[in-house]
Amino acid sequence: MAELTRFGISIDERLLQQFDKMISSKGYVNRSEAIRDLIRGALVEEEWGDANQQTVATVTLVYDHHTRDLADKLTEHQHSHHEEIVSTLHIHLDHHHCLEVVVIKGQASRVRRIADELIGTKGVKHGKLVATTTGKNLL
Amino acid sequence: MAELTRFGISIDERLLQQFDKMISSKGYVNRSEAIRDLIRGALVEEEWGDANQQTVATVTLVYDHHTRDLADKLTEHQHSHHEEIVSTLHIHLDHHHCLEVVVIKGQASRVRRIADELIGTKGVKHGKLVATTTGKNLL
Amino acid sequence: MAELTRFGISIDERLLQQFDKMISSKGYVNRSEAIRDLIRGALVEEEWGDANQQTVATVTLVYDHHTRDLADKLTEHQHSHHEEIVSTLHIHLDHHHCLEVVVIKGQASRVRRIADELIGTKGVKHGKLVATTTGKNLL
Amino acid sequence: MAELTRFGISIDERLLQQFDKMISSKGYVNRSEAIRDLIRGALVEEEWGDANQQTVATVTLVYDHHTRDLADKLTEHQHSHHEEIVSTLHIHLDHHHCLEVVVIKGQASRVRRIADELIGTKGVKHGKLVATTTGKNLL
Repeated sequence: MAELTRFGISIDERLLQQFDKMISSKGYVNRSEAIRDLIRGALVEEEWGDANQQTVATVTLVYDHHTRDLADKLTEHQHSHHEEIVSTLHIHLDHHHCLEVVVIKGQASRVRRIADELIGTKGVKHGKLVATTTGKNLL
Repeated sequence: MAELTRFGISIDERLLQQFDKMISSKGYVNRSEAIRDLIRGALVEEEWGDANQQTVATVTLVYDHHTRDLADKLTEHQHSHHEEIVSTLHIHLDHHHCLEVVVIKGQASRVRRIADELIGTKGVKHGKLVATTTGKNLL
Repeated sequence: MAELTRFGISIDERLLQQFDKMISSKGYVNRSEAIRDLIRGALVEEEWGDANQQTVATVTLVYDHHTRDLADKLTEHQHSHHEEIVSTLHIHLDHHHCLEVVVIKGQASRVRRIADELIGTKGVKHGKLVATTTGKNLL
Repeated sequence: MAELTRFGISIDERLLQQFDKMISSKGYVNRSEAIRDLIRGALVEEEWGDANQQTVATVTLVYDHHTRDLADKLTEHQHSHHEEIVSTLHIHLDHHHCLEVVVIKGQASRVRRIADELIGTKGVKHGKLVATTTGKNLL
């Protein structure tokens, strides 16, 4: 089992009140748990600073599949990176709108470039990269 | 001037070492300052539009499926909201780690609560909500 | 707990030998378990005989996304049935080939028609419907 | 003439009632005949091409996630083959039932073994393999 340690932090009282309110609404049972999650999140983002690090990411895209050539262009982009793109989940929101979640695995710099390419495709209404982690370096 | 207060948090020693290394490389002079910044960042993300708005979101989760009862708890959470949860894509990263992308559709306030529940489940190493849109109100 | 009962069946000895060989290679520990699975499978298919029954199915499709208009046509089909189509998982097999798994939920007769439409789309190299069940009527 | 033999199987009483109802509606005169037909059908499906061929398959599974340890066992199976298992789509059908579609890529013989392991897991109500193709050898 991992060894636990303890340290104190000083903080503006009102900021702490806002924090307490937020974490209780999120269902956390104590501050330590919430702060450990914030620290892990920051470490994951840090991992992405090293361009050669092996990483995993999800890209969420919303678009209208009637936009001329858009679905084709997105498919083409994804196939030209089929070694990094693990799979894509497609939800048909309504007659027009698609939600796509693309899972990408590979070198941080490459993953980011593929994500930018997808999000930047003309006609994509909303796109967002979640840089996550293979979990290996995280406790 | 804002009044300062102080509180203690308990943390895995190795996680704290990783954190210290990261914040020193970022130029922070002490942990309190770094943690206050994380807290402010989380509060900003917390901002959300109209709680009654129909929304779509993806939640990206990374966890070790060997963590006692974790997979069961996540499945249980998801089933108890099966009307909002459209589907879940699961990638087996290695012998230990899972990446899950959960697609949730419903009232903004409800979607956020489900996401918080999933991300806050003890043992989830990294969790991130992408609040997106059904596309209808977006030009 | 469900009550267990027992009955005997008569069978050609060589057919039984083939069956035993098959189920041992499949890892079954006894014949009862294997036969119960066959019976459940037959009941699921039976469920599909009733055109009004609520059912679930998966459709597996393989196609070359360079085939003119094919990806567009499949997306169009799927969106025009977005109330029955829960979600689609897309795997980019190589530069050319796509594997798509479409999950469809609804009235048996309607689900079957949507599946036929997808599988019958010109250019789909292989398509297969798995008629399964919501599980509600199955022990 | 083929030599007949006899063996007994144990089964949930209600499952047997459903089975009897189904086979009488199909015109079978006794259970033995119906079960022999199920066995023959299973043997036909067992036929498979070249065991070394690279293949892609989808496995559709329906199960009740409340069955003790079942979700854990399925996750464990899938992780121990994470090199062949590309991804898994999970649909929460209701409070009890899960539909899972597992995409497997690799040597035909290995893919079949993984599929058998998943489908044969005690508690899976319905499981079905669709052996498809990477598309390369198909015109």
